[in-house]
Amino acid sequence: MFTAELICFGNELLIGKTVNTNANWLGKRLITLGGKLLRITTIGDRLEDMIQVIREALERKPDVLITTGGLGTTFDDLTHTAIAKAMNVELVLNEDALKLISERLNFLKKNRNIDLSLTEERKRMALFPEGGIPLPNRAGSAPGVFVEYQKTKIFSLPGVPVEMKSIFDSEIVKYLPKDSSHSYHEKSLIVNNVPESELAKQISVVREKYPRVYFKTHPQSSSTSKKGIIEVEIHLTMVGSKEEAKLLKEIARELRELIMQMKGVQNKEPKITTK
Amino acid sequence: MFTAELICFGNELLIGKTVNTNANWLGKRLITLGGKLLRITTIGDRLEDMIQVIREALERKPDVLITTGGLGTTFDDLTHTAIAKAMNVELVLNEDALKLISERLNFLKKNRNIDLSLTEERKRMALFPEGGIPLPNRAGSAPGVFVEYQKTKIFSLPGVPVEMKSIFDSEIVKYLPKDSSHSYHEKSLIVNNVPESELAKQISVVREKYPRVYFKTHPQSSSTSKKGIIEVEIHLTMVGSKEEAKLLKEIARELRELIMQMKGVQNKEPKITTK
Repeated sequence: MFTAELICFGNELLIGKTVNTNANWLGKRLITLGGKLLRITTIGDRLEDMIQVIREALERKPDVLITTGGLGTTFDDLTHTAIAKAMNVELVLNEDALKLISERLNFLKKNRNIDLSLTEERKRMALFPEGGIPLPNRAGSAPGVFVEYQKTKIFSLPGVPVEMKSIFDSEIVKYLPKDSSHSYHEKSLIVNNVPESELAKQISVVREKYPRVYFKTHPQSSSTSKKGIIEVEIHLTMVGSKEEAKLLKEIARELRELIMQMKGVQNKEPKITTK
Repeated sequence: MFTAELICFGNELLIGKTVNTNANWLGKRLITLGGKLLRITTIGDRLEDMIQVIREALERKPDVLITTGGLGTTFDDLTHTAIAKAMNVELVLNEDALKLISERLNFLKKNRNIDLSLTEERKRMALFPEGGIPLPNRAGSAPGVFVEYQKTKIFSLPGVPVEMKSIFDSEIVKYLPKDSSHSYHEKSLIVNNVPESELAKQISVVREKYPRVYFKTHPQSSSTSKKGIIEVEIHLTMVGSKEEAKLLKEIARELRELIMQMKGVQNKEPKITTK
């Protein structure tokens, strides 16, 4: 497993204008690729703050640091500058990135009859931290950047979800540390008629037997919803070989048996479905 | 304006199981109440990590620190412990909190025929950092906590959205710093047929005249979507008196005039609606 951190730049995330679905999508993708996302930091567009959080993240030495947002042409698109400052390197015009941007403009002109010129603002999107490698953006104009700082691979992605996803899947995946023997596995038990707090003991019993498996309960909406329906998801996750992942089935069976012996609320039987 | 930070505890937020809608809701509420959310940190359920991020946040001395998640009865509900350790105070049984929990159990028994006893696991929800004041939870069992550390007001809320929102609106609002002379104002121009990068110059001209107003452009999906429709939102925000907020109307008018003089793509006229 490799470790990862995510930094999301953008005031819109702090004032509640935009829901951070990027963080959710990246968390899911990273774990299926053998990554463990340890921290997500969301911060505004002020340069000093941006430099500060990048430095903090680099000091924690994750294998991978991903940033979203701040790659465009407007005055508050400062991610390249912030990364360069945090790494103590220069901001330099990347010819490959400039070529990608020109190609994108040509594509728009030819295929969509949109005629945009390579202005100074657009050239800024090719000003990279020294050593940066452009990551082609098939869904927009701003290329992503891959740059290394000591043992950390830094990837900067645009904040627009369609562009972020496109670059991640077509470019970043190939640079990520590989560990084919380990992957992410999950299994869920959906339990009805037993509140989360009542399940704690049964789960503890099983959990102690299997320290490598992570147990998490999720009450569905409130554990005591208005309709009186109590539904709790027990989510089991682990990272390991396919062989080891058979454990999850075993645990689900053991847990199921323990819970079925309990008394549900209002004398209802516990009801369990697996997912 | 008061400053705020948010810490969201929960592995489910890091593995992409849950979208962090709490952060979005709180960001929106805080800004309308005169708060400025400066940073959101999302971290897993490991005690050492939790203590660490709380300490880091307290060192930055925000006026308000809100946490979500980790208040329930299961083994990984460690927020009270983490806050106590970060503040260097003891964890003590809060009698008022214990009373709230008992009352909730009575309520469930009487009104919903759900019979739960006050187990040791449930009592743990009343183990508060010393000096903590319970915040009644009308939508669930775990009370929130209000505790002060130096000049920072710390509020711990459950992670379940309905409970988090209920406690925030009925309890926290009354403890927040008040500043009735200043409130949050916003206005949007939705511009069609001009790409975000083309608007940058016009916005710069107006922006320099009004330093107190924050300008942010949001391309709707990608600025060059498949259908060839280009739509960009220019979002203007400011915090000030009602009198000062009239500025936003003025700016919207100025910007509108500047943009209408531009040439849109494919020789289309720019189209603008305000919101």
